[in-house]
Amino acid sequence: MKNYITHDEWSIVEDGFHAANNEITESLMSLGNGRMGQRGNFEEQYTGKTLLGNYVAGVYFPDKTRVGWWKNGYPNYFAKVLNACNWTGIDIKIGDETLDLNTCQVEDFRRVLNMQEGTLERITTVQLASGKRLKIYSKRFCNMVDDESGAIQYSITPLDFTDTFTVTPYLDGNISNRDSNYDETFWNEIHKETSFSEGYLVLETKENPYGVEQFQVATGMAFDIKINGLKTDYQSLPARREKYVAGVVHIEVKEGDELTIFKYAVNLSSTNYEKDQLIPEAKSYIKRISEKGFAQLYAEHVKAWADKWEKNDITIEGDIAAQQGIRFNIFHLNQTYTGEDERLNIGPKGFTGEKYGGSTYWDTEAYCIPFYLSTADEKVARNLLVYRHKHLQKAIENAEKLGFSGGAALYPMVTMNGEECHNEWEITFEEIHRNGAIAFAIYDYVRYTGDESYLSEYGLEVLIGISRFWKQRITWSAEKKQFVMLGVTGPNEYENNVNNNWYTNYIACWTLRYTLEVISKLWGTERLNEIIFQTHFNLNGEMADWKNIVDNMHFPYDPEKQVYLQQQGFLDKEILTVNDIADHRPINQKWSWDRILRSCFIKQADVLQGLYLFEDDFSTEEIKRNFEFYEPMTVHESSLSPCVHSILAAKIGLKEKAYEMYVRTSRLDLDDYNNDTEDGLHITSMAGTWMSVVKGFAGQRVKDGVLVLNPYIPEQWNSYSFRIGFRGALLRVEVTQEGVAVENISDHDVTILIKGEPLLIAANSTERK
Amino acid sequence: MKNYITHDEWSIVEDGFHAANNEITESLMSLGNGRMGQRGNFEEQYTGKTLLGNYVAGVYFPDKTRVGWWKNGYPNYFAKVLNACNWTGIDIKIGDETLDLNTCQVEDFRRVLNMQEGTLERITTVQLASGKRLKIYSKRFCNMVDDESGAIQYSITPLDFTDTFTVTPYLDGNISNRDSNYDETFWNEIHKETSFSEGYLVLETKENPYGVEQFQVATGMAFDIKINGLKTDYQSLPARREKYVAGVVHIEVKEGDELTIFKYAVNLSSTNYEKDQLIPEAKSYIKRISEKGFAQLYAEHVKAWADKWEKNDITIEGDIAAQQGIRFNIFHLNQTYTGEDERLNIGPKGFTGEKYGGSTYWDTEAYCIPFYLSTADEKVARNLLVYRHKHLQKAIENAEKLGFSGGAALYPMVTMNGEECHNEWEITFEEIHRNGAIAFAIYDYVRYTGDESYLSEYGLEVLIGISRFWKQRITWSAEKKQFVMLGVTGPNEYENNVNNNWYTNYIACWTLRYTLEVISKLWGTERLNEIIFQTHFNLNGEMADWKNIVDNMHFPYDPEKQVYLQQQGFLDKEILTVNDIADHRPINQKWSWDRILRSCFIKQADVLQGLYLFEDDFSTEEIKRNFEFYEPMTVHESSLSPCVHSILAAKIGLKEKAYEMYVRTSRLDLDDYNNDTEDGLHITSMAGTWMSVVKGFAGQRVKDGVLVLNPYIPEQWNSYSFRIGFRGALLRVEVTQEGVAVENISDHDVTILIKGEPLLIAANSTERK
Repeated sequence: MKNYITHDEWSIVEDGFHAANNEITESLMSLGNGRMGQRGNFEEQYTGKTLLGNYVAGVYFPDKTRVGWWKNGYPNYFAKVLNACNWTGIDIKIGDETLDLNTCQVEDFRRVLNMQEGTLERITTVQLASGKRLKIYSKRFCNMVDDESGAIQYSITPLDFTDTFTVTPYLDGNISNRDSNYDETFWNEIHKETSFSEGYLVLETKENPYGVEQFQVATGMAFDIKINGLKTDYQSLPARREKYVAGVVHIEVKEGDELTIFKYAVNLSSTNYEKDQLIPEAKSYIKRISEKGFAQLYAEHVKAWADKWEKNDITIEGDIAAQQGIRFNIFHLNQTYTGEDERLNIGPKGFTGEKYGGSTYWDTEAYCIPFYLSTADEKVARNLLVYRHKHLQKAIENAEKLGFSGGAALYPMVTMNGEECHNEWEITFEEIHRNGAIAFAIYDYVRYTGDESYLSEYGLEVLIGISRFWKQRITWSAEKKQFVMLGVTGPNEYENNVNNNWYTNYIACWTLRYTLEVISKLWGTERLNEIIFQTHFNLNGEMADWKNIVDNMHFPYDPEKQVYLQQQGFLDKEILTVNDIADHRPINQKWSWDRILRSCFIKQADVLQGLYLFEDDFSTEEIKRNFEFYEPMTVHESSLSPCVHSILAAKIGLKEKAYEMYVRTSRLDLDDYNNDTEDGLHITSMAGTWMSVVKGFAGQRVKDGVLVLNPYIPEQWNSYSFRIGFRGALLRVEVTQEGVAVENISDHDVTILIKGEPLLIAANSTERK
Repeated sequence: MKNYITHDEWSIVEDGFHAANNEITESLMSLGNGRMGQRGNFEEQYTGKTLLGNYVAGVYFPDKTRVGWWKNGYPNYFAKVLNACNWTGIDIKIGDETLDLNTCQVEDFRRVLNMQEGTLERITTVQLASGKRLKIYSKRFCNMVDDESGAIQYSITPLDFTDTFTVTPYLDGNISNRDSNYDETFWNEIHKETSFSEGYLVLETKENPYGVEQFQVATGMAFDIKINGLKTDYQSLPARREKYVAGVVHIEVKEGDELTIFKYAVNLSSTNYEKDQLIPEAKSYIKRISEKGFAQLYAEHVKAWADKWEKNDITIEGDIAAQQGIRFNIFHLNQTYTGEDERLNIGPKGFTGEKYGGSTYWDTEAYCIPFYLSTADEKVARNLLVYRHKHLQKAIENAEKLGFSGGAALYPMVTMNGEECHNEWEITFEEIHRNGAIAFAIYDYVRYTGDESYLSEYGLEVLIGISRFWKQRITWSAEKKQFVMLGVTGPNEYENNVNNNWYTNYIACWTLRYTLEVISKLWGTERLNEIIFQTHFNLNGEMADWKNIVDNMHFPYDPEKQVYLQQQGFLDKEILTVNDIADHRPINQKWSWDRILRSCFIKQADVLQGLYLFEDDFSTEEIKRNFEFYEPMTVHESSLSPCVHSILAAKIGLKEKAYEMYVRTSRLDLDDYNNDTEDGLHITSMAGTWMSVVKGFAGQRVKDGVLVLNPYIPEQWNSYSFRIGFRGALLRVEVTQEGVAVENISDHDVTILIKGEPLLIAANSTERK
């Protein structure tokens, strides 16, 4: 755990340069706009510890699967998130000296991620080896409005000398992934050009043998230079090398004068443009944004962020660390996914790092969709669902590879384009509960929005594919005279290849039931007939099979302890608590895999995940009994775990536990709990943090089309507030130690259920409780 | 399955050149002497399909473990069997034309592995592109007497022309492993020298970061050239390149004359010599063998093979294919391991290929030791046991890595030097039954030889280490009120991470019982006190713990079907037979891993393996019931499986099944059943083939110090005979359709039990039954 970030309500502040932590700071201060993003690297050369990172949404390389021992059915490749062309670079030379904070004396330094505005600023004073002193001020943003662009203002003031500066704004595609297998580079140069103050570079991903398209990304830049804010004459000499273009400007700067470089850049990808249009489009894009100019771009960008915060800010009073933590989580979620493009999804590291490949895990459905449902336009969550609908055919092919047939669909564990790209058999082939989360998200979306049209338009086809998978995956046990599901890995990945994982069995049966329900709902419609025809659905046979499973499924349960068993045979284990193994944690770093597997310790909520998703099927007492059985065994070595425990603890009245779990989730990256923030941030669990507040402390639910709140406030806080949208209304909920106020900021009246009682909140008014 | 090898009683014959199958033939015709070996490559250049392979026992490279996803506890490296310097090469040029069977017209061709003599011969007539015709005759052997050397006689006769021949006997270390990760080479040159008709090359394995010694191998050669068997004058020009030395001889050969090159080579390894002595030792070795000359070396070598066959030949009359098959198996076992060096062991491919690393699997104990016990000096099996004793400390360290303590030992799944070098968690960490096989082998050795001194000298220490492991690995189930073993992989690797694998539970308890028994046996001896002191043995506590486990262990059993369950929950599976999935086999090539795991299908005998090892603990009826339950589910996709089924089937009177399983095992490589003989031979399962005859058809056992035979003859055969040693006696057992004759070839009287009746066979006499 680290503690060098200054606590502040709206900003992430590094006061004084922490060179040893620079890669962590770079992760924390990443900028993104859903289309592209980059880590908080310095603009000028830096030879110290750094992970230079620029990422473009939807662009990846299919890297050959390399395993020690091949298992039949493994995917051929792994979709690797590609580190892309660096567009933020501006090299600075003063006379013959290169500006490099690694070789200067840094006199003062402040780097600030302004989350309210979505900007990264830096102000620093340095002394060069020659003794010359300089002040640097930079501000940049990844444009939320013109979302294929970014802009930088970079100012430098010689404090005690006059000299000729060499200023080199550049684009550099000589980039390799740090996590790549053999320092391979994945980009080839296709085209480059330069003119007076512009430069363009088109890079293409390398050839691959998997039939995956080769992506092209055109990166363009334009720059302008001012002295003391005024136009000035300067010469710019184009420089070109392999995968590199730059403009080199020699300019004299007088002592005390401020030289400012404005750099505008665009990243256009062949996922959005014809390849032969990339250069002309990049040029006109550059023209448009550079004509707007930095100040106007900045103003538009800040306005866009204000609109976002308007919808999804959470305030916490009386606890600045908690305030900073929650905003940090919301900020990065907004940077990672905006819902503008239904081909995109929420990568585990967003645009903050390159570890892990793929962009889509079950995290999206289980953790992120609730966040976007409440804090963004309906279409954002809808697009996330449509993304899976688009991949339905691939999910069917994926299931076929594993021996399933007849339209059974198994969605991949990790994917970029619908194809599986993970390669551990116990995960890839067996962690199939992901399929259930994808079905549940459809239900969750319809429950929240009331948008039943989604079911007929897209949802049912996906549900049928998934239900068919469960039907085939579940087998009859002559021994038990019940249906069983053998050989799975549940959400708790510290168990592999178990039989009858309670959670997986439950969500499978739930899917079958829900699919039957949706078919009943659409009964007699033309669209249902169409779907039946298209999917070759055997109406009586398949429905009867599903009902048979629902009625006769085995769910492991211990009548003595009255708890659901995580899997068959769970009680054969030695039942210990995390307190018994204090010296051994984290077990994933201290124990061999077999020891983890045969222990009772739980990486991540498993039975509890099911009780959380399907809470209405269980009494509070039942939930409490299971919580008290499983919580003491849970090591929370997945970032996705504490939030579920926090929400459940809040529900069953364990307030201290709920707060403890909240703290654990909210500052995970800010305080580098797991010692891995330098690789990038844990983006998807950030939605879980948001849920801990809104679903946990505030008890937000939707039941029968009505928004429900059951708020309480942790005693450590004075107040907290959040904003949520619900079916056209925008509400600001404020909870204090005294009570709850709900402000309806919208023009729609809305009736909600607070603490069990209905409350009408008229448009643009506030009610208290 | 292929069928191009001519059936012959004593030889493996390729009639006509089968270029497409050349790599298979090279595997089949590999030569070895326990110290070194090489594939059946041609001496002269060959540009067609070939896997040039030379191997030196005990020499390996620790190659970095590469997995997709690292699990805590994985070994850092994999001990790779290294393809080593090629010493068999003799390049031939006729004028400007290079002799290369890939570019000639091959007029006639015969390649013969003479198993009786241990030689590889080739006679071929070829026409060069120029039209010139040549006859080639070669014979070579890997010397069984001077076991660091080999010799070649290579003769060439121009049939219709006279020309100058360029003859280049060479040593070439420019070799890379075919299975290596990135075409890496693993050898560096240390030294080379040449003289008139000699050459020496010292190669060293590359540096490694694992602290594994860098091996050096000195390869030396001397050659001589004759015309028509007579000395002749010739000039030899030394040639030297990186990792290459040669002598180049230009010599005129007249039409019809026979040019013969005699090449003598040695391979001395730093595992046997001081590095600075390698060159002088190689020179004196070369001097010694070249002075003996080819004819004498050959005569000594053939004599050594005759001695081996005297001890372990099996004859089968009435079935040449079966005769050839069984001798092929015995021949390669003798080539792979001679028992001369207790640091060596039996690699899965012997000296016939480089696939898989390591030299030692549990195959050694479970399959090979019974073969060597009956067919070689006692010390051979004893050395195999001592090998594990030498690795006891490493096994203790290996267990410590996995969280065990207090002297608990877990022997590696795959090893070269005692350290684990396999990296699949479900095997490396969980296929722990191997530990039981190592304990059982001690029992098996003592039972066969009566050599109880082994127990106090070495055996007990190993047994204590293994018993301590079982004690810690077994846990108490409060649910079952019995001891359980969770998270294991049994011999049937088509189940992973199961609970209470019956076989593993059984062999674990057996180990504990046997260790207790051995302690009782040694009670009061000084040596026991010494061992107690050295191992910090807690006499009362540990023994009581072990007894408690033995008395209260859980063994999954189905009372209705009255069969032992392969593991807990086995009957939850759909119980099918291999006939139900005829189109799907082999399932390891057609099914994804999860499908294999949740199916009932068995790769290799599992419960049956236990019933085979511990047959006296079970009634024949019980064995039959379990056999009839499990056999129909067994796909035998491990080469180690059919022999156990064959032996059990023979025991319970299922003669047709026993014969079917025998056929399956005995010609596995000769007929390339699994389409992988080109990678090398399945050496360890060859001992299983031998067991199918001797333990299966002939019912050989040892009970209470008496050799037992219960022979019958498959109806397909006229007779079969085999030789076994037993406590100083050498017996030749002949079984015909009429009865059994046992000849005592030795000078010891021996009483054996035939079909339940004792029979005294006096020295050098024969008894019939």
